[in-house]
Amino acid sequence: MSISSVGFIGLGSMGQGIATNLLKGTSQLRVYNRSKEKTRSLVEQGAVAVEDASDVVEPGGVVFTMLSDDAALRSVVFDSVNFIKRLAPGGIHVSLSTISPDTAREMSEYHDRHGVRFLSAPVIGRPDRAAAGTLFVLLAGRSEAKAAVSPLLERISQRIFDFGEEPWLSNIAKLAFNFNIAAAIEIMAESFTLAEKNGIPRQKMAELLSETLFSSVVYRGYGDHVARHAYDPAGFRLVLGWKDIRLMLQIAAESATPLPIGSLLRDRLLSAIAKGRGELDWSALALGASEDANVPA
Amino acid sequence: MSISSVGFIGLGSMGQGIATNLLKGTSQLRVYNRSKEKTRSLVEQGAVAVEDASDVVEPGGVVFTMLSDDAALRSVVFDSVNFIKRLAPGGIHVSLSTISPDTAREMSEYHDRHGVRFLSAPVIGRPDRAAAGTLFVLLAGRSEAKAAVSPLLERISQRIFDFGEEPWLSNIAKLAFNFNIAAAIEIMAESFTLAEKNGIPRQKMAELLSETLFSSVVYRGYGDHVARHAYDPAGFRLVLGWKDIRLMLQIAAESATPLPIGSLLRDRLLSAIAKGRGELDWSALALGASEDANVPA
Amino acid sequence: MSISSVGFIGLGSMGQGIATNLLKGTSQLRVYNRSKEKTRSLVEQGAVAVEDASDVVEPGGVVFTMLSDDAALRSVVFDSVNFIKRLAPGGIHVSLSTISPDTAREMSEYHDRHGVRFLSAPVIGRPDRAAAGTLFVLLAGRSEAKAAVSPLLERISQRIFDFGEEPWLSNIAKLAFNFNIAAAIEIMAESFTLAEKNGIPRQKMAELLSETLFSSVVYRGYGDHVARHAYDPAGFRLVLGWKDIRLMLQIAAESATPLPIGSLLRDRLLSAIAKGRGELDWSALALGASEDANVPA
Amino acid sequence: MSISSVGFIGLGSMGQGIATNLLKGTSQLRVYNRSKEKTRSLVEQGAVAVEDASDVVEPGGVVFTMLSDDAALRSVVFDSVNFIKRLAPGGIHVSLSTISPDTAREMSEYHDRHGVRFLSAPVIGRPDRAAAGTLFVLLAGRSEAKAAVSPLLERISQRIFDFGEEPWLSNIAKLAFNFNIAAAIEIMAESFTLAEKNGIPRQKMAELLSETLFSSVVYRGYGDHVARHAYDPAGFRLVLGWKDIRLMLQIAAESATPLPIGSLLRDRLLSAIAKGRGELDWSALALGASEDANVPA
Repeated sequence: MSISSVGFIGLGSMGQGIATNLLKGTSQLRVYNRSKEKTRSLVEQGAVAVEDASDVVEPGGVVFTMLSDDAALRSVVFDSVNFIKRLAPGGIHVSLSTISPDTAREMSEYHDRHGVRFLSAPVIGRPDRAAAGTLFVLLAGRSEAKAAVSPLLERISQRIFDFGEEPWLSNIAKLAFNFNIAAAIEIMAESFTLAEKNGIPRQKMAELLSETLFSSVVYRGYGDHVARHAYDPAGFRLVLGWKDIRLMLQIAAESATPLPIGSLLRDRLLSAIAKGRGELDWSALALGASEDANVPA
Repeated sequence: MSISSVGFIGLGSMGQGIATNLLKGTSQLRVYNRSKEKTRSLVEQGAVAVEDASDVVEPGGVVFTMLSDDAALRSVVFDSVNFIKRLAPGGIHVSLSTISPDTAREMSEYHDRHGVRFLSAPVIGRPDRAAAGTLFVLLAGRSEAKAAVSPLLERISQRIFDFGEEPWLSNIAKLAFNFNIAAAIEIMAESFTLAEKNGIPRQKMAELLSETLFSSVVYRGYGDHVARHAYDPAGFRLVLGWKDIRLMLQIAAESATPLPIGSLLRDRLLSAIAKGRGELDWSALALGASEDANVPA
Repeated sequence: MSISSVGFIGLGSMGQGIATNLLKGTSQLRVYNRSKEKTRSLVEQGAVAVEDASDVVEPGGVVFTMLSDDAALRSVVFDSVNFIKRLAPGGIHVSLSTISPDTAREMSEYHDRHGVRFLSAPVIGRPDRAAAGTLFVLLAGRSEAKAAVSPLLERISQRIFDFGEEPWLSNIAKLAFNFNIAAAIEIMAESFTLAEKNGIPRQKMAELLSETLFSSVVYRGYGDHVARHAYDPAGFRLVLGWKDIRLMLQIAAESATPLPIGSLLRDRLLSAIAKGRGELDWSALALGASEDANVPA
Repeated sequence: MSISSVGFIGLGSMGQGIATNLLKGTSQLRVYNRSKEKTRSLVEQGAVAVEDASDVVEPGGVVFTMLSDDAALRSVVFDSVNFIKRLAPGGIHVSLSTISPDTAREMSEYHDRHGVRFLSAPVIGRPDRAAAGTLFVLLAGRSEAKAAVSPLLERISQRIFDFGEEPWLSNIAKLAFNFNIAAAIEIMAESFTLAEKNGIPRQKMAELLSETLFSSVVYRGYGDHVARHAYDPAGFRLVLGWKDIRLMLQIAAESATPLPIGSLLRDRLLSAIAKGRGELDWSALALGASEDANVPA
């Protein structure tokens, strides 16, 4: 299966880096963004900006979308029938956005009905990794479509994790991944608070974890923020974190999976929202442990 | 402050490696172990085995103890007055054992009264790191004593973390560290179970964590065990894990620190004990999440 | 405000008793039920059975609905425009069903737009109380409408609790009430299990509660079932209990209210469903505490 | 088995009422209290005050103790050998105090060794019930001793619950009973907070529970306090409530019984203590739910 053309929709902070990496070594990349000025840098590097989202797409081609949420993706795909019509037959839509498993399932069925392949490929990493081409891709969908886009995905990532044939599974994996981050924030918050109340500096405890057996991006990065109670500006807003945990708990409910730490995070995040912290970084859920113990943050 | 002599008590699987590393570059090391045959290897390398624990010690010297629990340490220190008498004046006792903060405090006061310095120096790492001299040391006690033993500790570890002047603080830090491990086991258990119930293999989820932003000894090691439900043989027995969590919760209660994840782990470990899993590895607490969700392990 | 006519829709086990009590002292009661045979007993007592739900209704009249769930109520109200058209202007719809606050809000707005009053009046009590006219009514909606139907509600209940002007508030109160029942089941389960593991019979512990300071319908009734692990046949099916707790948690999320016991019940109920207990009485959530402690039920 | 004489030790607010009821119909009651002035009222009614605790006791007699805690009871029983010597042989010691199961067990063994019967008989009820003779007694110990003291216990209580032959079981039952009270406080706190955040007055929700299916002393009494956030003065101080929950969790740990609501209460009470609420009524644990939801109390 060879790819005749490549399109990219959604040039936010993540999309810019990803599209730039796709552009290198592609004969042609057509790009679209709602506010047109964001296409400038890519055009200077050789991309072609189009006027309508559907125009980035053509039969047998591949279109990548990197949009902010379910609603934005739905708008691109469903608002005009042109999008799916122009992809068919044989086109592939690679959705890089973090969307709900339900939307992924609905997308998948809709594309199938039109003879188009839908791949769900949410990524792990922030804009710096997107620019460096060192994201992690969580890929799921039909095998032949995955094989076809692999060379493209390799340009934007350091590693591709394959979650099978059903597109929404990679979205579930992404939610479960984020669940682990939120849980790491909470456990650090609890253990730093315990240390602090006994006369051990929070930073010392963070160091003990992140420079020994927990040495990893999450424990180093969030460990530092939680130790210093540095939640502003937000890397990932708490309201968005809550949205992900809420979606995950919904999946858990549908699959009858009790998740006591998930439940705890639910209550921590709701409390943070009740206290007006929705726009802080989601690691601000760590304030709960400090407040429970009556330690000033 | 120079060190006139060095003694070592407790040649279990950890002590063997540590004493061997101390021996390299020490003019003389006197060693003691309750069952004498464990001294053989060290004697072959040049150590001197003594008949009584007190005999490893002399005034102004340093004695290391690496014993299995509070009771074993108390027996060495309190059963014969010779131990403290022979260390005084000016000797230093470095306790490498994982003991309770209360015992550390009692040891500290007792040594102080006799003009001897007590340092609490529990370590992170298993026998392979002890043998390789790449342990992590959590050190606390009087500064001049810490300075005096630093050259020795550097031979056995890759890094020393200083927890201040009060010896028991390093024991509290060790408990808080283990709390993080147990919590990581539980959160992996929950997220792997969620994945599994939705058709994603546990191993796949473990990989996604341990080969991306959670890449660390704990997530790789325990991630693999929890994914495969491989809890036998035990690296660290569940009953010992429960002892540590119990001690930590006691410290939490004394310092009025609510710890909801600590409470959850308490219930998970008690349930595992009720189900006869006390001799399995403590990562067997992960079975709780599977059973709650009615997934066969 | 005087009432010109009274209609009743929904003659299940609750509706039969309620309608019978309304009939006493009403000049005329028109009744409707999907399966017509359930109207027989009421017709024998003087009620008039009609062919279509809308026919029980007339302008300025009062219609009571007692339906199994949101969907059944929506079907009656929304499927045919006749229902609302025949009530207007000035009619009153008293919804006795346990429906979601969202549906109650939607109903309220829809009725308002048509000049009809919607009252939400979920009840507490089982069929025996419905027959005896000793239900408790949780009433909410516009004051003048509440005043108008009070004489009717007094015939079916021993007490009316007024939750104000907004109809959905009585539905929220009902969910919060059921939350208390589920929590009482869980706390009894935990304390009976603790007793049992220490050699005190569960029944003994149930007696100690329900015959001293907890003497009440809930502790006597559920206490006995939980003590004997008697969950079949179901008085209230676990899947329905889960629906209520789920709705309550949704309200909690929308109002940013953390509810740790609510979260615990969520996990207990999901676990029970995972174990195939959805058709048992919802007090079967008590099995969780026994299983955690490895006590055979 | 007939009783030759009756003694009473401990004339606090509970002891006064109980001793007064015992005095009615007893030929002679010897009383002792550490501060002598508290014996006056009883002496005026015919009791004999003695100078030393041991003097209330004589062989074959029955002595009741109603002391504030384990330490006070231990002091009376263990500080002077006279206490047990004067009871032997054949005497009975009825301990009405709320003590730990461990102390009850130790007492039982000590009395057994001296040929004296120890009965554990903690009571439910506050001073008003003690004065009215309407307490509930949780009785455990040897059958013949229980039979012998039953006529006396009937004078002070409306009901005796028999927990078998092992004295400490009634202490465990008392702890499990108090656990239910604390849990009822928490669940009311959560549901009142949910109501409040949705515009339903807390008092309204309290009424809905305590005047329908939860109508009982606990829900009426604590419901009112929690609804009004009225925690001062304390009926039962929070630090004492914490002591009971702590003892219960210890029993739970020893019997490998996970208790998630127990764990939650642990964290709520520790948080309340951290916030300086130890001297308030233990229903002040309800403030946690309000603070989590950011609702002013």
